Amino acid sequence: MPFDALPASPAVKVRDVALRDGLQAIARTVPTEIKRLWLQQAYEAGLRELEVGSFVPARLLPQLADTAELVTFAKTLPGLTASVLVPNLRGAQAAMEAQADWMLLPLSASHAHSLANLRKTPDEVLREIEAIRAARDAAGSACRLEVGLSTAFGCTIQGRVDPAEVLRLVRALVDLGVERIGLADTVGYADPAQVAALFTQAFELAGDRLACGHFHDTRGLGLANVYAAWSVGVRRFDACVGGIGGCPHAPGASGNVATEDVAWLFASMGQPTGLDFERLIALRGRLATWLDGEPLHGSIWRAGLPKTLRTPG
Amino acid sequence: MPFDALPASPAVKVRDVALRDGLQAIARTVPTEIKRLWLQQAYEAGLRELEVGSFVPARLLPQLADTAELVTFAKTLPGLTASVLVPNLRGAQAAMEAQADWMLLPLSASHAHSLANLRKTPDEVLREIEAIRAARDAAGSACRLEVGLSTAFGCTIQGRVDPAEVLRLVRALVDLGVERIGLADTVGYADPAQVAALFTQAFELAGDRLACGHFHDTRGLGLANVYAAWSVGVRRFDACVGGIGGCPHAPGASGNVATEDVAWLFASMGQPTGLDFERLIALRGRLATWLDGEPLHGSIWRAGLPKTLRTPG
Repeated sequence: MPFDALPASPAVKVRDVALRDGLQAIARTVPTEIKRLWLQQAYEAGLRELEVGSFVPARLLPQLADTAELVTFAKTLPGLTASVLVPNLRGAQAAMEAQADWMLLPLSASHAHSLANLRKTPDEVLREIEAIRAARDAAGSACRLEVGLSTAFGCTIQGRVDPAEVLRLVRALVDLGVERIGLADTVGYADPAQVAALFTQAFELAGDRLACGHFHDTRGLGLANVYAAWSVGVRRFDACVGGIGGCPHAPGASGNVATEDVAWLFASMGQPTGLDFERLIALRGRLATWLDGEPLHGSIWRAGLPKTLRTPG
Repeated sequence: MPFDALPASPAVKVRDVALRDGLQAIARTVPTEIKRLWLQQAYEAGLRELEVGSFVPARLLPQLADTAELVTFAKTLPGLTASVLVPNLRGAQAAMEAQADWMLLPLSASHAHSLANLRKTPDEVLREIEAIRAARDAAGSACRLEVGLSTAFGCTIQGRVDPAEVLRLVRALVDLGVERIGLADTVGYADPAQVAALFTQAFELAGDRLACGHFHDTRGLGLANVYAAWSVGVRRFDACVGGIGGCPHAPGASGNVATEDVAWLFASMGQPTGLDFERLIALRGRLATWLDGEPLHGSIWRAGLPKTLRTPG
């Protein structure tokens, strides 16, 4: 049962990032044939943007070593946009070779997190992004660049992250000509007032290029933050089926906002996402088997849709 | 560790309703001496408004039969406001005799829910409220009247509830001269856009008398709805420590928004509530013992406060 007929252009776009952000946090390796089934079923549930993996060295994240294969498979599904995470120029070259539609480049707004995670300062990462953009342009590749500004709302290492620093980086990214910028609450520190304020300021600098909200539900505010971002104009969100993707800095805490919860939030507000509730819940059920023993999260799967949203067929 | 020094007038007021709304949903009877301890510790955690019970016949809700005793105890704690639920004139008389500060009268916006729950139509309930107000005035009682408009955002029996009907009832309550009106999402159907819209319209009719948001987290939108209501001017909310108060129409679903989560939401937004995080979490821990076997809910207890909120002392 779809929440709504698949609209030509959904009011809100949801990118499921479970195959990368979710699986990256889980040590086990899901077989490629299962990932292909997963990807297919996400597509059948109405998802038209998926982050399918990461071009990092296989010795670091063996569970994502089949990323190129998944991009190839994703491109057989009509209208599906495949994103991949790339940490550096080498990864970007792999993404272009694989013909991914988008490469996602992480940039930590927290200096301390940037050093811990990428061993580079934010300004060094900016230079790497510039080199990637130049390489992409030189190669004539159609692969677009999206930068996710991680720890934009706070950092488990550094604590507070100055909004002025986030905005400085947003401006630098606009100047570098990346096609899309997102703000990410990597560790579940954001509150909705902060989300509304920071996105509002970032829109002034980046306009339509600011086009992704990435929230974790570590402390229960995930959906409140999605709503707050939507209320100031954000129309594209990352999420994970089953709410997978626990934060390594918050043991036992839940991870990304659940795709099925985000779909329910927007369906309840009359904002079509093109997603099919029952198929998302069915996929969540399969994840529980494929990831047997890993905690799943989210809310709507438990109580089901309210009577007011149930539609025939 | 307080989120903030107890302000003379908190920016946001939280009333804990666990001793009534929470315990009403739980069959077991908590001994009065435990309830007194619970009430004392809620007070020490900074709560200054508590719903302590309900004046319904003890044969219907034996677990709330000690309500008068709890009101008496609550009134020994300086600055504590004690509310009690009253379903009818007889209950109102008991509330006045007990010298409760506020009596809370439920009024279902759903015609079907009103008949199922109170065996009266909403207009019959309005007449009962009028009789209660007249009796209160005739008695010269200082007990104030608050009406909680339940199922204001939808109903498990009737489905959709027309906002026009909710607003008609709000206007009637203003005309009846009740001191306070709240809108309640009794069954977890509300979405934040609906919450913002309905409170905005109700404020136009009731002004400052509209002074309570009551949300359940049945489908994960509890805190998003609290934020949405706050964003249009609501500054007073019901909540339950430990998120108790499951909805009988949604088995397995969580209940009221958790007091500790609401406190964390507002603390993170820089809106003082006067609540002490560690004491709320400690009380939650005691509830887990006192209500051994009952599911508790909420989010912040699991991951703890972010580094950005941790304050010395």
